[in-house]
Amino acid sequence: MKDIYIADLANFNEGALLNGFFLVLVKQQRTTKTNKPYLNLILGDKTGQIEGRVWDPSDPRIAKDFDKGDVVKVRGSASHFDDRVQMKIDQLRVALPNEVEKSDLLPSTTYDVAELWSQLVSVVASFTNPDLKGLLSTLFDDPKLAQAFREAPAAKGLHHAWLGGLLEHVISLLTLGDSVAAHYPLLDRDLLLTGVILHDIGKVRELSWVSGFEYTIEGSLLGHIHIGSVLVERAMDKLPDFPPKLKTLVLHMILSHHGKLEFGSPKLPMISEALVLNFLDDLDAKMQAITSEFDKCIRDGKPADELTGKVWSLDQRQLLNTKRWLNEGKE
Amino acid sequence: MKDIYIADLANFNEGALLNGFFLVLVKQQRTTKTNKPYLNLILGDKTGQIEGRVWDPSDPRIAKDFDKGDVVKVRGSASHFDDRVQMKIDQLRVALPNEVEKSDLLPSTTYDVAELWSQLVSVVASFTNPDLKGLLSTLFDDPKLAQAFREAPAAKGLHHAWLGGLLEHVISLLTLGDSVAAHYPLLDRDLLLTGVILHDIGKVRELSWVSGFEYTIEGSLLGHIHIGSVLVERAMDKLPDFPPKLKTLVLHMILSHHGKLEFGSPKLPMISEALVLNFLDDLDAKMQAITSEFDKCIRDGKPADELTGKVWSLDQRQLLNTKRWLNEGKE
Amino acid sequence: MKDIYIADLANFNEGALLNGFFLVLVKQQRTTKTNKPYLNLILGDKTGQIEGRVWDPSDPRIAKDFDKGDVVKVRGSASHFDDRVQMKIDQLRVALPNEVEKSDLLPSTTYDVAELWSQLVSVVASFTNPDLKGLLSTLFDDPKLAQAFREAPAAKGLHHAWLGGLLEHVISLLTLGDSVAAHYPLLDRDLLLTGVILHDIGKVRELSWVSGFEYTIEGSLLGHIHIGSVLVERAMDKLPDFPPKLKTLVLHMILSHHGKLEFGSPKLPMISEALVLNFLDDLDAKMQAITSEFDKCIRDGKPADELTGKVWSLDQRQLLNTKRWLNEGKE
Amino acid sequence: MKDIYIADLANFNEGALLNGFFLVLVKQQRTTKTNKPYLNLILGDKTGQIEGRVWDPSDPRIAKDFDKGDVVKVRGSASHFDDRVQMKIDQLRVALPNEVEKSDLLPSTTYDVAELWSQLVSVVASFTNPDLKGLLSTLFDDPKLAQAFREAPAAKGLHHAWLGGLLEHVISLLTLGDSVAAHYPLLDRDLLLTGVILHDIGKVRELSWVSGFEYTIEGSLLGHIHIGSVLVERAMDKLPDFPPKLKTLVLHMILSHHGKLEFGSPKLPMISEALVLNFLDDLDAKMQAITSEFDKCIRDGKPADELTGKVWSLDQRQLLNTKRWLNEGKE
Amino acid sequence: MKDIYIADLANFNEGALLNGFFLVLVKQQRTTKTNKPYLNLILGDKTGQIEGRVWDPSDPRIAKDFDKGDVVKVRGSASHFDDRVQMKIDQLRVALPNEVEKSDLLPSTTYDVAELWSQLVSVVASFTNPDLKGLLSTLFDDPKLAQAFREAPAAKGLHHAWLGGLLEHVISLLTLGDSVAAHYPLLDRDLLLTGVILHDIGKVRELSWVSGFEYTIEGSLLGHIHIGSVLVERAMDKLPDFPPKLKTLVLHMILSHHGKLEFGSPKLPMISEALVLNFLDDLDAKMQAITSEFDKCIRDGKPADELTGKVWSLDQRQLLNTKRWLNEGKE
Amino acid sequence: MKDIYIADLANFNEGALLNGFFLVLVKQQRTTKTNKPYLNLILGDKTGQIEGRVWDPSDPRIAKDFDKGDVVKVRGSASHFDDRVQMKIDQLRVALPNEVEKSDLLPSTTYDVAELWSQLVSVVASFTNPDLKGLLSTLFDDPKLAQAFREAPAAKGLHHAWLGGLLEHVISLLTLGDSVAAHYPLLDRDLLLTGVILHDIGKVRELSWVSGFEYTIEGSLLGHIHIGSVLVERAMDKLPDFPPKLKTLVLHMILSHHGKLEFGSPKLPMISEALVLNFLDDLDAKMQAITSEFDKCIRDGKPADELTGKVWSLDQRQLLNTKRWLNEGKE
Repeated sequence: MKDIYIADLANFNEGALLNGFFLVLVKQQRTTKTNKPYLNLILGDKTGQIEGRVWDPSDPRIAKDFDKGDVVKVRGSASHFDDRVQMKIDQLRVALPNEVEKSDLLPSTTYDVAELWSQLVSVVASFTNPDLKGLLSTLFDDPKLAQAFREAPAAKGLHHAWLGGLLEHVISLLTLGDSVAAHYPLLDRDLLLTGVILHDIGKVRELSWVSGFEYTIEGSLLGHIHIGSVLVERAMDKLPDFPPKLKTLVLHMILSHHGKLEFGSPKLPMISEALVLNFLDDLDAKMQAITSEFDKCIRDGKPADELTGKVWSLDQRQLLNTKRWLNEGKE
Repeated sequence: MKDIYIADLANFNEGALLNGFFLVLVKQQRTTKTNKPYLNLILGDKTGQIEGRVWDPSDPRIAKDFDKGDVVKVRGSASHFDDRVQMKIDQLRVALPNEVEKSDLLPSTTYDVAELWSQLVSVVASFTNPDLKGLLSTLFDDPKLAQAFREAPAAKGLHHAWLGGLLEHVISLLTLGDSVAAHYPLLDRDLLLTGVILHDIGKVRELSWVSGFEYTIEGSLLGHIHIGSVLVERAMDKLPDFPPKLKTLVLHMILSHHGKLEFGSPKLPMISEALVLNFLDDLDAKMQAITSEFDKCIRDGKPADELTGKVWSLDQRQLLNTKRWLNEGKE
Repeated sequence: MKDIYIADLANFNEGALLNGFFLVLVKQQRTTKTNKPYLNLILGDKTGQIEGRVWDPSDPRIAKDFDKGDVVKVRGSASHFDDRVQMKIDQLRVALPNEVEKSDLLPSTTYDVAELWSQLVSVVASFTNPDLKGLLSTLFDDPKLAQAFREAPAAKGLHHAWLGGLLEHVISLLTLGDSVAAHYPLLDRDLLLTGVILHDIGKVRELSWVSGFEYTIEGSLLGHIHIGSVLVERAMDKLPDFPPKLKTLVLHMILSHHGKLEFGSPKLPMISEALVLNFLDDLDAKMQAITSEFDKCIRDGKPADELTGKVWSLDQRQLLNTKRWLNEGKE
Repeated sequence: MKDIYIADLANFNEGALLNGFFLVLVKQQRTTKTNKPYLNLILGDKTGQIEGRVWDPSDPRIAKDFDKGDVVKVRGSASHFDDRVQMKIDQLRVALPNEVEKSDLLPSTTYDVAELWSQLVSVVASFTNPDLKGLLSTLFDDPKLAQAFREAPAAKGLHHAWLGGLLEHVISLLTLGDSVAAHYPLLDRDLLLTGVILHDIGKVRELSWVSGFEYTIEGSLLGHIHIGSVLVERAMDKLPDFPPKLKTLVLHMILSHHGKLEFGSPKLPMISEALVLNFLDDLDAKMQAITSEFDKCIRDGKPADELTGKVWSLDQRQLLNTKRWLNEGKE
Repeated sequence: MKDIYIADLANFNEGALLNGFFLVLVKQQRTTKTNKPYLNLILGDKTGQIEGRVWDPSDPRIAKDFDKGDVVKVRGSASHFDDRVQMKIDQLRVALPNEVEKSDLLPSTTYDVAELWSQLVSVVASFTNPDLKGLLSTLFDDPKLAQAFREAPAAKGLHHAWLGGLLEHVISLLTLGDSVAAHYPLLDRDLLLTGVILHDIGKVRELSWVSGFEYTIEGSLLGHIHIGSVLVERAMDKLPDFPPKLKTLVLHMILSHHGKLEFGSPKLPMISEALVLNFLDDLDAKMQAITSEFDKCIRDGKPADELTGKVWSLDQRQLLNTKRWLNEGKE
Repeated sequence: MKDIYIADLANFNEGALLNGFFLVLVKQQRTTKTNKPYLNLILGDKTGQIEGRVWDPSDPRIAKDFDKGDVVKVRGSASHFDDRVQMKIDQLRVALPNEVEKSDLLPSTTYDVAELWSQLVSVVASFTNPDLKGLLSTLFDDPKLAQAFREAPAAKGLHHAWLGGLLEHVISLLTLGDSVAAHYPLLDRDLLLTGVILHDIGKVRELSWVSGFEYTIEGSLLGHIHIGSVLVERAMDKLPDFPPKLKTLVLHMILSHHGKLEFGSPKLPMISEALVLNFLDDLDAKMQAITSEFDKCIRDGKPADELTGKVWSLDQRQLLNTKRWLNEGKE
């Protein structure tokens, strides 16, 4: 386990020594005003990012063979520069394969992934439609896909942007979807929940979470909607008797889940299950973004009667934390 | 009780005599090509509308004193004109006050209103916030308002456009809202459900349901959002110690429930309860519109693999009835 | 070969007898004002549509077993009704399999399909990229797909809405694309022309051209962009060493060819070949729509200095036929 | 009266001593790179804002009990930092209640408020409609409301953003409105001018002008349109015989005065007086914004043939000062 | 003078003989169901339009040489067809040059054109800027242009769509513009009023008012903004010392007067005079449209508490006639 | 010829002496923190811009009489400041008229202008329409206009933003236009190519390229579409028998070439030649912007699998360089 986190460095005394594992997010060659080469690094862990400087890259204690995406062990000292903290690095080596856990280096879900996974499995087990149950079982029998599904973030930056974020988002939607399916007789529950589970499955290839969260070239050019629908279509093709109508409906749910053409769905929801999926997906993403924003305000010490900053995924709106505001002065 | 409904007239033989109560929706003086005056009426009941002609308005068997909005008893015969059915009217008199029930003359909810009302009452009883419970009790202690709330349609034409539609819509939202409030710890359940109950209360004065569903002048110029917020603000003003913060939050939920400025909300949702209210309100209205559209397709004898007509409240989209399509050929 | 075409019926004398093959586009059961059943048909051939009435469906000379999509032989007489011509049908039977050619019953390209096809083949033969050449050869080695590609219309109604329209449109784009590829060194010619050939291939399943041009349910719910990209992706998967980068680029061209998210492309063009494809596709569709509109004006006898009607695919714009206007009075 | 204004500080010599009253707009606790605490203040007066630093907050000459919104007397010295001027503060105490006038600390109208007010009063006196005259008299008989109306800015930042700005804007509109009412016989002058006077009255509670110009929470969540319409509706409710139709019309003018739903009006103008109010309000706000922008260009020494910067309230347009440009070279 | 107007025909008895002058708006050759040729005409005068039928075009009493745009004298009888009145024409000849006045045949301003013109002249006489005064004098010294300016409608259909409408609109704007120029010291009065007079001058060639109001081909392809700016630029070019800056400003006012790019102005208003011109032009057009709409409601016998139909130039809004509604029941 | 270029300064050693000609883009008077006056200059040449400081403006070696737009010779030394290079200037004088070529001081086309010009001339020579050939010859017989046409940039910053850019863009479009005209029989080649040559001719007065690329006041207020159409209209007016129809068509092509009202065209393309001109103009501008962006990525050392930055003229899209990416690893 890591014992120093970037979030803690702000409280270090000027010049204190430190020693720890970090992920290399950016590595740049630069020169000083007096033309001396140095390395500028951006290092990250699950709590944040920090700039690091290697003023003498030729020092034998500085590894030569590391690159963006590597985990490194560094020794150095923190110093304040303007209002930022910067790290001066004296030693640096590439970490051994299992010296540190990935979940310490990138932000992760606060939920127990195994627990989330077993909830997913039990929802699938509850399906009465054998074809949909078979489809999901087949997909998750692929251990590589299942592992990626457990690890993937739900987004690059807007909501659930952490390891396990996709799974966390799906589980939240399954609970909501179950309630809504029970409420409207029109809805086919298994179809709706299949859509919930599969709508973002293309993110396992659209995003890369090796060094920070980034789009792959394939992800940028094709998008998770296409990637996911092809992945699911292939799985259905392999099932001998998967009903063609059901296939069209499942694919339609993936294609239309963004709800608007201008959000990148090539089709608008044309069945009630797709409409509901779009609503719940949007609602859950926004509720998560609000929760994160409120947490940030508390961390930043903002008073309860101050609105949040402008929230990108809510059209730059500023929000008020109802419960906190109502309780203000009562505590 | 009425014994002849407009929906049944299409099956009448040419010229068959008929006799029944109808609501006068439109009354126009016209002249024939040979310059003879006649009356053109549009008559309605809960099942639809029909054109009626009084070819001799001076006939003593035709009342002189009736007008738009009156209930009348007519005797005449059905005839086919192009593809429409028309009624030739021989006798017409204004109905006595209790000869026929309003719910026979305008479309009404298919639910038991008393049952819906008791669900509403029990939700309010479950509130733990005494101020919100007090506000709702006070409002519904006004028997005139409570009666209007039970009668009002939820809209003029888009969704729940029938007597009792507002209450039916609110009850549906209460169930959904309760599930969602339980799902997100961020949400203040009582505040959310108060918003659910009050968001459309201004419709009791925006709409008139005397002769068909129409906007009042006040409704057209001020809108149900303003009317409702003022109505609720007055009720809060009368409660001695209603907390000012809570007042602001309740009013904000009414003002922002359309979710977008261009839909007539003067403020966007800025608290999570308002955001959820907007989502659920929109979802429930759309699900109801889809249900009506699917019912219409079945009534019109459309095959299961034909999309619906273009649905106005879903941006002119055409929809597919999932369950019916999947079951096609299986029955 | 057919010897009577709908476009010619306008010049028939009232009541003249006629006899010919037509496609049944619509078949409806109706009743007269006096409650007698009759059949209302919409019949089509490649020159247009006409309404037909069977006043006595029980007549033994009227087949009982025909339906929408069938080709029928009818005997009857033309009559004028308001400003329309209508056909009164006395005899009707289903046509034998090869009594009439499909291309007489639906509008078709005026080009020689075999000639267009050989142009396509020779463009593919000119490719220097072996992977793209292999991909296209593989696809068109499937005789069913090749046949559908030769038959498909390019659209349901906007442009090239006739049998062979897709191929005609593709050939026009190949010529343009070749010029543009030669003009800009940035462009990879084979990639651009592959995109030209494959961009609309999903239309072979999005549209049905059995009885008029219609969307299939699969087409409505998934769209030709998805259908085409999956079809092409499968073909690439079967080629042992198709380069993954090239695969991403080809799929990107199909996905992005509508050029805007709101036109149903889930991705905007992000490579120069995709940008050019979108421009040329749009330009050719509009030029074809203008040509059709100008032809229609001439057929309708409009003078050269009168603008066309409002053209749907050009934002309801009205156009002027330059050459015709400049030559007016010179002839 | 204040004798030092922030706008004058730019001309101070480095290190010159100064001594004056300012409004505390922001107060932040910070630490230096060497971990010493200091205070960062933003101080304002009617001419601008300046950053102030208290490097030793424990100094007994620095008051401990002041906060944002307080008026303070400070003694210190000006110093240049990059291109900005900063104040180093040696002494600081809270000002006594009447040591300095509010109008010295926040930007104020350049007009005589008493004069503006008497113009308003005489316009009301000229009304021939007794109900509207009564309504306005009643409202302004409330001395607290009348005082707030005289003090309020018209906006937080876009136009008339100074004390007395609301009144100045209203007076300008009354002159314009009077001309336009005389020009179009369709218009009811008293109704139009009532709308002019009351359209922004909700700003007295939407905005706070204690420490700079800020939105209140109530203002953010409800908006001045709602606040104003409720305030006016209450006043009408208290008048025994205020005609209901007139009430609807006055409220409609307040609700619709932004002219577009997307600008926060829940209703579009549906009477000609509301349409005119929206036009004049918009015109006057823009003309004021242009005037301010032209004044700024002159203050900044821009030549007459240089366009202004991009003006936010005119869609980022750049403007040319006609008179100045035409006179250039003539002086 | 004409003695029969189309608006009066509705009250004619079936078959009554009539005799009068009309403008031929449309002339079409048609054939009856029994293949006999007949003429379908649309005839107009200043009060409306009517359909006319010549059932026997070979009758020697029917002129052979008339066409669209001609004034004709017809004799025939009125008959009712469905709810419309139609004229059966027995005799028809082309009118002699001065048998009837143009102002009887097309809708005209209700103002005295000579009076409007003298108001325009006296405004120009009041200018203090000699260059602008010279420009306007020069333009209107051209008798053909001056005559066209007095005759032109202001629009094809939206507002002031009658002979003299342009001049009427300009005079209304001059009064408004004079008030506004006096109100804002920023404004150059003569420049503003020059813009008012010239902004729509291109309509004298954009529109044709020979047979109804129509766009010329030049008007359709170039638009009145271009036509007008070129016309004015040429006039300035001919004035020996017209100041170049003033030229740019006058042209800018014409180019920008629609106020938005999407309304066809190639430039947004960038000087305050252009901004004001756009506001007043828009306001006056809308006020005139509202006045026409209210007049129509009264003519159609609508009650005072019924909203108007949807007004095209006000985004399909429905309006309420304030004064009429407030007076309802008082008369 | 210049021997030092700004792009080379980054590689200078700290403090190295330098000596060269530059264009003064900005000249500002400033004072240091200790109140000493100094000059801040922005100097440019065809390779970029650099900040220069004259710390002692009173030094006799510093010219007093230079201004923005002048070419100056400076002597000084480069120094690094943060990550930028800055020049400390010791001597400065205004350059003599022919000491340095304009094309060294502003970015220029990399093509041979004489060669481009002769291509233009030969295209005009190929015209078969004598009127259009005459129009173009007349225009370019004006040596001042021809020279400006050879020098002008095509835009201020988006595409072809360099001396000769307009001509380079026109030549590129002529080649494309010739291909497209040959492809569609509908098109009048000479009219299309006339539109290509003249569409942006107004830029010779909209832009100024004396000191950097800037809009003139005339350009800002009138725009190149108006300026160009007037310039061309005047030329046609001078040709004795230029056909009026052709005049309308040529002007329409200039007015409509931006393709959308919101892009500043007062008319949409209404003839097929105008539609094609708009397509090709847009395509060529975008292809050039992409080429520049790809060149920039290579200069900046970005890897082939990294997308470009957000491209302004492509809606902030990021692009991939196909050929470079496919070749990556193959070299």
